[in-house]
Amino acid sequence: MASFTLQGIPVSRGIAIGRAHLLRPAALEVQHYLVGQEQVEAEVLRLQNALAEAERELQKIWSDLPADAPSELGAFLDVHSLFLSDPMLAQAPLEIIRTRHYNAEWALVTQIDVLLAQFDEIEDDYLRERKADIEQVADRLLKLLTGSATTLPPNAGVDELNTHMIVVARDISPADMMQFQDSAFVGFVTDEGGRSSHTAIVSRSLGIPAVVGMGNASHLIQQDDWLIIDSVAGVVIVAPQQIILDEYREKQAAIQRFRKKLAKLKKTSAVTKDGTPITLLANIELPEHAAAANEVGASGVGLFRSEFLFMGRDGILPSEEEQFEAYRATVQAMKGRPVTIRTLDVGADKPLDEADVATLNPALGLRAIRYCLAEPQLFLTQLRAILRASAFGKVNILIPMLSHLFEIDQTLAMVAQAKQQLILQGIAFDADIKVGAMIEVPAAALSLPMFVKKMDFLSIGTNDLIQYTLAIDRADYAVAHLYDDVHPAILQLLAMTVAAADKAGIPVAICGGMAGDIKLTRLLLGMGFRELSMPPAQLLEIKQEVMNIDLLLFNPIIKKILRSYEPEVIAEGIRALQLL
Amino acid sequence: MASFTLQGIPVSRGIAIGRAHLLRPAALEVQHYLVGQEQVEAEVLRLQNALAEAERELQKIWSDLPADAPSELGAFLDVHSLFLSDPMLAQAPLEIIRTRHYNAEWALVTQIDVLLAQFDEIEDDYLRERKADIEQVADRLLKLLTGSATTLPPNAGVDELNTHMIVVARDISPADMMQFQDSAFVGFVTDEGGRSSHTAIVSRSLGIPAVVGMGNASHLIQQDDWLIIDSVAGVVIVAPQQIILDEYREKQAAIQRFRKKLAKLKKTSAVTKDGTPITLLANIELPEHAAAANEVGASGVGLFRSEFLFMGRDGILPSEEEQFEAYRATVQAMKGRPVTIRTLDVGADKPLDEADVATLNPALGLRAIRYCLAEPQLFLTQLRAILRASAFGKVNILIPMLSHLFEIDQTLAMVAQAKQQLILQGIAFDADIKVGAMIEVPAAALSLPMFVKKMDFLSIGTNDLIQYTLAIDRADYAVAHLYDDVHPAILQLLAMTVAAADKAGIPVAICGGMAGDIKLTRLLLGMGFRELSMPPAQLLEIKQEVMNIDLLLFNPIIKKILRSYEPEVIAEGIRALQLL
Repeated sequence: MASFTLQGIPVSRGIAIGRAHLLRPAALEVQHYLVGQEQVEAEVLRLQNALAEAERELQKIWSDLPADAPSELGAFLDVHSLFLSDPMLAQAPLEIIRTRHYNAEWALVTQIDVLLAQFDEIEDDYLRERKADIEQVADRLLKLLTGSATTLPPNAGVDELNTHMIVVARDISPADMMQFQDSAFVGFVTDEGGRSSHTAIVSRSLGIPAVVGMGNASHLIQQDDWLIIDSVAGVVIVAPQQIILDEYREKQAAIQRFRKKLAKLKKTSAVTKDGTPITLLANIELPEHAAAANEVGASGVGLFRSEFLFMGRDGILPSEEEQFEAYRATVQAMKGRPVTIRTLDVGADKPLDEADVATLNPALGLRAIRYCLAEPQLFLTQLRAILRASAFGKVNILIPMLSHLFEIDQTLAMVAQAKQQLILQGIAFDADIKVGAMIEVPAAALSLPMFVKKMDFLSIGTNDLIQYTLAIDRADYAVAHLYDDVHPAILQLLAMTVAAADKAGIPVAICGGMAGDIKLTRLLLGMGFRELSMPPAQLLEIKQEVMNIDLLLFNPIIKKILRSYEPEVIAEGIRALQLL
Repeated sequence: MASFTLQGIPVSRGIAIGRAHLLRPAALEVQHYLVGQEQVEAEVLRLQNALAEAERELQKIWSDLPADAPSELGAFLDVHSLFLSDPMLAQAPLEIIRTRHYNAEWALVTQIDVLLAQFDEIEDDYLRERKADIEQVADRLLKLLTGSATTLPPNAGVDELNTHMIVVARDISPADMMQFQDSAFVGFVTDEGGRSSHTAIVSRSLGIPAVVGMGNASHLIQQDDWLIIDSVAGVVIVAPQQIILDEYREKQAAIQRFRKKLAKLKKTSAVTKDGTPITLLANIELPEHAAAANEVGASGVGLFRSEFLFMGRDGILPSEEEQFEAYRATVQAMKGRPVTIRTLDVGADKPLDEADVATLNPALGLRAIRYCLAEPQLFLTQLRAILRASAFGKVNILIPMLSHLFEIDQTLAMVAQAKQQLILQGIAFDADIKVGAMIEVPAAALSLPMFVKKMDFLSIGTNDLIQYTLAIDRADYAVAHLYDDVHPAILQLLAMTVAAADKAGIPVAICGGMAGDIKLTRLLLGMGFRELSMPPAQLLEIKQEVMNIDLLLFNPIIKKILRSYEPEVIAEGIRALQLL
């Protein structure tokens, strides 16, 4: 097969080399791992048992049908039974387990994808729509497989070459992405998504090379194709020639050497040439990521995205105890350095379960603090868990999506209520815990006097702020060309926020994507920001940049940038800052 | 049945009394009208023919199946055939035509809803999912019915009592709503939607009483229940007692008398007590609405929503000629008064066809000018049609959703290109036609210097501006409580816009919902706005209010409102203005 190159949007830096693993949407929701040779037949048996059980279930529905049920219903059942006994479904996945060593769920969805693709080629709309039946049979089987997982840990006894795989999919949700970390996958390629989609954010935070917004890559790339992801250039090279492969392996090695060099900065202070100390913090999703924050010498966690504790659990909420343990583990891992925990930010593109995505514009719906105020018990539980963790180290509470005074008041009242409940129970917490607001809704950035009066600190979520201010969905490929983090409107809002916080004497951080973008570090420091929170993978490079900056030289250019409404002038100013 | 009252969000003023007509989502997309007695059997025959033709189609698919087609496919076809011959589908809709005089499509979807509801009650997920088959059979039938419509005009020969019906639905799209105007329906009640949803806007513009955001009204109200919509109080009284009915009929009459009194203001100039002339313009959706604008003495059309020419056409675009005729008819109907035509604003909640609603957050997607710039031929066609109409009266072009300098530049280049094409063809147009920008994306209101330099006028779309600035979907009931058109952030943006336009010496209008809200007239005039564009139904009442205003008294209160970030202080200021 001839080699070709696809262009996309690079979202995390680095190079990955591996074989393509195509995953369609249905396939994403199941676990993916490889089983060792000695485990193969047990895995085959597991799938065979599920097939037999599914057939028994269908027979039971048949016999339970009420006498007056419409006669058509029996015909539906027959269709599903026919599918279950078809070799395409009953045999082919077993072969995949034996030859490719996939776990049973993965083998099943791989084959289902093959079947669905065949249906897609049928001309008649009506027959094509029968895909739904196949999907339902697959769902039934997957439900039966759940709870009968293999006993060996995933990927145990798997040889290394097999573990270099690159996920190729239409799109991957953040929760699905978590299924792939610590596994055999070294890169992500998706048709959809933009620079600031959550998929992009998570892949950056995992430090895994990824290219998104690839258009129809998942149709052009074949299963098992060799791929090179060059996520600096934003290209994917499909079926590369040996000479190209060798070249990229050398580049990979060079990146490794650069990272080793950066690692030496771990204990160096982030101070500019003119002596201004800058606080560099880490964004993390789960307690176990605290290790990555420490490894790069982060001054603390600037953003703990607590919603990841709530995701991929089929809507079952983590208990207060479970949350407390997670927060405490994080706080203790940070050894006295502060941990800023953002309260639940669900809804929008991070629903707790699929049923929540019923609204037309979830990003403009009941999400984050709006959702929490509508679910006070859920919110109180989380607040108590965070407060309890504050007895074990320095903790701040960060509230997402605030935009109204009454939301601020209600939120603070609930924090007070949670404290009161703990006092009554005699449970320790930091009475002086700070509560801050995310500035991410334009209305918040435009009514800062309302915020600085009541909140202890501010943290700008640039991704959402840009999304709403420019009215573009950051996950929507069709408007990715309109995403502009240095649009004059955005710079005005950032400038207003840093000015209002300074005037009120409260800290302000940036924890959105702009904080980790090395091209913007000089601009942000020049504008007066002194706290940046970013994925650990980017922190050392940003620290190196900070140490090269002399803020005393910046003022005239910064003034020119902020006075201008000409994108050209702004871009030129940012380039000029790089040269100082 | 006992009477009860449901509370919702009132979106257009007035009282409606009639019988409930429940419509589920599927039912909304077809035409709804009543047929006279003499037309009934022809209508029955039309549906019988469709049933027979659908069966022939299925047989044809059967015989065309390739020999190697999977054996399951035949089973699917059988299921659909079974449905087609079931009396529930083959007989019941015919009875509905005979007894209720519905047109064939309406009768069919009414019965389909009954069937779908039965399926919803089935316990097993698998069987419940078979609803899809019923929907597909229904689709096949509806496609066959299209193009075989009755020859008599809708509602001809229908007695008057039957024509007082109130649509009750989960939600109604603007395009669907158009299906109901000039028909037998006197009111709308929907479970979803907020004060500024498009449904609300259209019902205001049609002058039809409506209450939205009713929660589960469509489940609580039964088919044919008597209903009273009191859209001033925002309540729906279900199955009212006779004494209540009588009371409301008297209220209805009083409203009629008040409207008659207002009608005398038609030719009076809208001038404040202190002598400031105010321009009151009409928002319209279709050329035939120009009559309503003239009837209330509008100074022109401030917003012609051209997208309604494009909707409900199954994605077939209107030709340049067809558009030109529509624009010219509007311009000529306005007899020299200006007509501001907004270019196509589709995407989001106003898709051209269902297939367009694929993105997760359409309001933040490829809509309005973004869509037009991505479809240059479509945009050029519309621009040429508008330019040609400008030879017949005063026309302005208004561009929605602009937020980037390059969008402004591209748009103006396309206007120039359209002019050039007409010049080459020797077709007349107003060479001095003005091109203005909607200010409705926060980024636009925050980068006004970019706009006033290049555009001839501004028009603020307050609905979208509020939606994005507060990050709430105006059609999403779950966040309706967060909608606040006098949030300090919104007032800042409005003040910035009027200041920037005044400084640049270009006109600025408000054409969003705030312009037609009589509670805000004093605030907006006090802030410096002199042009308001609103649904014709509200214009005379606003004119009466304008004539009662003495702007010389307003300044201290306006200053206090604009300096404040306390919702309480703002609300108090607005109340104080009413007392002056």
